[in-house]
Amino acid sequence: MTATATHNESGAGLRPYKALESRFHRLAALNEAAGMLHWDMAAMMPPGGAEARAEQLAQMRLVCHEILADPALGGLLGEAESRREELDPWAVANLHEMRRQWIHATALEPPLVEALSRAASRCEGVWREARPAADFAKVVPALGDLLALVREAAAAKAARLGCGLYEALLDEFEPGGKVAAIDALFDDLATFLPALREKALAAQARRPAPLNARGPFPTAQQMALGEKLMATVGFDFHHGRLDTSLHPFCGGTPDDVRITTRYDESDFASALMGVLHETGHALYERGLPAPWRYQPVGQARGMGIHESQSLLMEMQACRSKPFLTYLAPLLVEAFGHQDPAFTPENLLALYWRVKPGFIRVEADEVTYPSHVILRYRLERAMIEGRMEVADLPMAWNEGMVELLGIRPPSDREGCLQDIHWYDGAFGYFPTYTLGAMNAAQLFDAAGRADPAIPEELGRGDFKPLLGWLRTNVHRLGSSQTAAEIMTQATGRPLDAAVFKRHLERRYLGQG
Amino acid sequence: MTATATHNESGAGLRPYKALESRFHRLAALNEAAGMLHWDMAAMMPPGGAEARAEQLAQMRLVCHEILADPALGGLLGEAESRREELDPWAVANLHEMRRQWIHATALEPPLVEALSRAASRCEGVWREARPAADFAKVVPALGDLLALVREAAAAKAARLGCGLYEALLDEFEPGGKVAAIDALFDDLATFLPALREKALAAQARRPAPLNARGPFPTAQQMALGEKLMATVGFDFHHGRLDTSLHPFCGGTPDDVRITTRYDESDFASALMGVLHETGHALYERGLPAPWRYQPVGQARGMGIHESQSLLMEMQACRSKPFLTYLAPLLVEAFGHQDPAFTPENLLALYWRVKPGFIRVEADEVTYPSHVILRYRLERAMIEGRMEVADLPMAWNEGMVELLGIRPPSDREGCLQDIHWYDGAFGYFPTYTLGAMNAAQLFDAAGRADPAIPEELGRGDFKPLLGWLRTNVHRLGSSQTAAEIMTQATGRPLDAAVFKRHLERRYLGQG
Repeated sequence: MTATATHNESGAGLRPYKALESRFHRLAALNEAAGMLHWDMAAMMPPGGAEARAEQLAQMRLVCHEILADPALGGLLGEAESRREELDPWAVANLHEMRRQWIHATALEPPLVEALSRAASRCEGVWREARPAADFAKVVPALGDLLALVREAAAAKAARLGCGLYEALLDEFEPGGKVAAIDALFDDLATFLPALREKALAAQARRPAPLNARGPFPTAQQMALGEKLMATVGFDFHHGRLDTSLHPFCGGTPDDVRITTRYDESDFASALMGVLHETGHALYERGLPAPWRYQPVGQARGMGIHESQSLLMEMQACRSKPFLTYLAPLLVEAFGHQDPAFTPENLLALYWRVKPGFIRVEADEVTYPSHVILRYRLERAMIEGRMEVADLPMAWNEGMVELLGIRPPSDREGCLQDIHWYDGAFGYFPTYTLGAMNAAQLFDAAGRADPAIPEELGRGDFKPLLGWLRTNVHRLGSSQTAAEIMTQATGRPLDAAVFKRHLERRYLGQG
Repeated sequence: MTATATHNESGAGLRPYKALESRFHRLAALNEAAGMLHWDMAAMMPPGGAEARAEQLAQMRLVCHEILADPALGGLLGEAESRREELDPWAVANLHEMRRQWIHATALEPPLVEALSRAASRCEGVWREARPAADFAKVVPALGDLLALVREAAAAKAARLGCGLYEALLDEFEPGGKVAAIDALFDDLATFLPALREKALAAQARRPAPLNARGPFPTAQQMALGEKLMATVGFDFHHGRLDTSLHPFCGGTPDDVRITTRYDESDFASALMGVLHETGHALYERGLPAPWRYQPVGQARGMGIHESQSLLMEMQACRSKPFLTYLAPLLVEAFGHQDPAFTPENLLALYWRVKPGFIRVEADEVTYPSHVILRYRLERAMIEGRMEVADLPMAWNEGMVELLGIRPPSDREGCLQDIHWYDGAFGYFPTYTLGAMNAAQLFDAAGRADPAIPEELGRGDFKPLLGWLRTNVHRLGSSQTAAEIMTQATGRPLDAAVFKRHLERRYLGQG
């Protein structure tokens, strides 16, 4: 019932480390339980259960917090770290992650935690009214209060982590992430993307517009096709399920991965790629190192890597020409009729369409990074005290013109569109585009390691690709930083070159 | 986030009681969370998730046990009890239930808890092989070891509760239950039932045998009918769901009640009554006193009352002539065709059929109590040291002849059929028949309070019945003993008379 790890140390010097493993084991099991309850809340729970569920989760969070905040645990960390040389590398990495989790859990004084939670709830509530009314002024006071508290939290964590203010927030989502590295990557992309976008739009204008298939596409048929494709990609239904929820996500636990999607009976295209995206997340969770299942080092390595696994599956593998060619006859079979929209050529036109717009969550692969770069720059400026909340709309709209060449008609389609900031989440946005770049560089490396991989997708054979990901990404858990994983798997640190080349090949036919 | 109770005391003398409320509040929320995970395990979880789920639940159980076993909690109980006179009656009852839960959680030394758990797992494992092989001798050593430990546990709890050995085990399922009372009720029934059964069989032989409707009955149609009837009876789908599992049960929480059933496409009759049975449980949970939601006194009052709510709904209300008459046209509508089996007369013949058999879970309303009385007598003899495990088959078979007039062909259809003892559960069986008797006496009292209740079921109107149950049973939670609830609701203590009269009316057409 206690330690799961399989390393071989022994001796009294390890006692503090072993005691930590036992405490973190319980914490991980309780977090898994909470994860299942979150899945249920989104996929199964009747609306009247919401209040009780919130109470169950609040109590579980308190129990988890008490485990981490127990002063004895802090003492054990110090003792174990002072005998670090007796531990094998995985245990050392585990200890490092324990310390990191402990810092995030204890860096803030309880009154600040409570004030943050209250300010976030209040701000989110005001935002829910301000957004439909496109009334940014309404949310300025609440967002200002929230931002002040988030900056206070960032300062407290930065002092403990020994990093910058923004990095202290980023660390929760992208452990060890550095602004200098992100700046370099994003500046490179920001320079590159506008010209690419214009060329892609021009090339697209010379080709016929994609046909939309004639629905309806009954939910049951879409679901059956989704499950078939999940199995093709490598999802193990012995250890997971596909269900329906308003917002698609991947939840559950590595041994019981629950992914969800939503269906639109007039459009098969969106749920289909949504399912494949979540399957990428699911395969990562499922592939995490089982011997370290209930330890911090056994868990996923941040959102930049997590998102790379979903985007690799969706954007690199399943929107590739070989796979869409493989998919075309499966659509005819799944929906029981032929349709001019079900040809490989049309699927390419449909899934490779570029269309600049105001809304991030509707963006295509070419324009998405611009939405993220804008948010990253603005949230850093706010956290670092270089920008006031009141200046957000103007800065947003100017950034949109600079990066995407369009100006939102109102703040509803502008700086009010995403929940993140209004809920207190700063430092999350860059992981979407880090994920897209990681995905391109990993897929390219897999194809260099086994040149058959891209073409085998055209026969529905994902085994070689999945095998490469298992070895080079999934099984590493959190034993290395995201930067180390990328360097080791692809032979060089992450840069924008492979992602840029991928976009040029796909959207300009160059490369 | 802390106390839920609405009583009005104040003052420093209440501090220990309030501190207890806060601890038990957390305990209840964690138990609710565990309940949801159990539901998921039965209704949703893919098989590969079993091991991880067991670990999540084990860690949650440990956390709950640590909350109860904290020495500080024992101290608070003593302090609060010494100032009991400052509490209102609900708080006094709450404190009593806290003490009871504490005794059950702490009466056994940890090595005994562990030995019991290990012996139960081992015995259940052997039983799973012994049962299909009808090889009782194979399980004798493991059951003997388990029984010795259960008796040791009974002695430890009996000393703390101040009751007999068997009562100490019974108390977990039927708090405050007394063997003298059960003996009186069961001896009465045991004398009465054989003659009734023979007369009922003779009367049945003079009537035409029931027709079985011609299936198939598609699962989706059965499910839709089940949900329709649940709504008719008063189930609130805003606060609950119906799903499918191998073993039907009622789980979840009062604000999010999850019931399950299983479907046989060749037989509509079984799932239909199964759903109505679980709906009775669900309505009880939903009706528990909301202001005491997270306190012991707000929880269901033992299995004898719980089972009374399911059996009242199934046996008293939904197998009544008025309701089956109301049901008949709904079957035609639900399955889209007329069938000679769907007449009220045939439904009565089908749902009132008496058929003595070897297997408890297949027994009808008339013979079921005999199965229970047999098990109660045998388990008491084993716990009280009046019978050895090795003597069980002979005692069982003789008891079957005495009580039911039939002798099992092998121990597979005899003393190996139920999991309870082999899993260490002694003291549960009597609650089934206490439930049936409680149900009859409560339904009778409801009909005396409002004589229109039985006939209104024939119009599908359950509101008056449910209203009476809400007031007289559900809203009391655990504020009174089962005996007190019965006396107050029906005007006299539980006896077998009303149940016997119910059986005579239904099966002999006598009054």
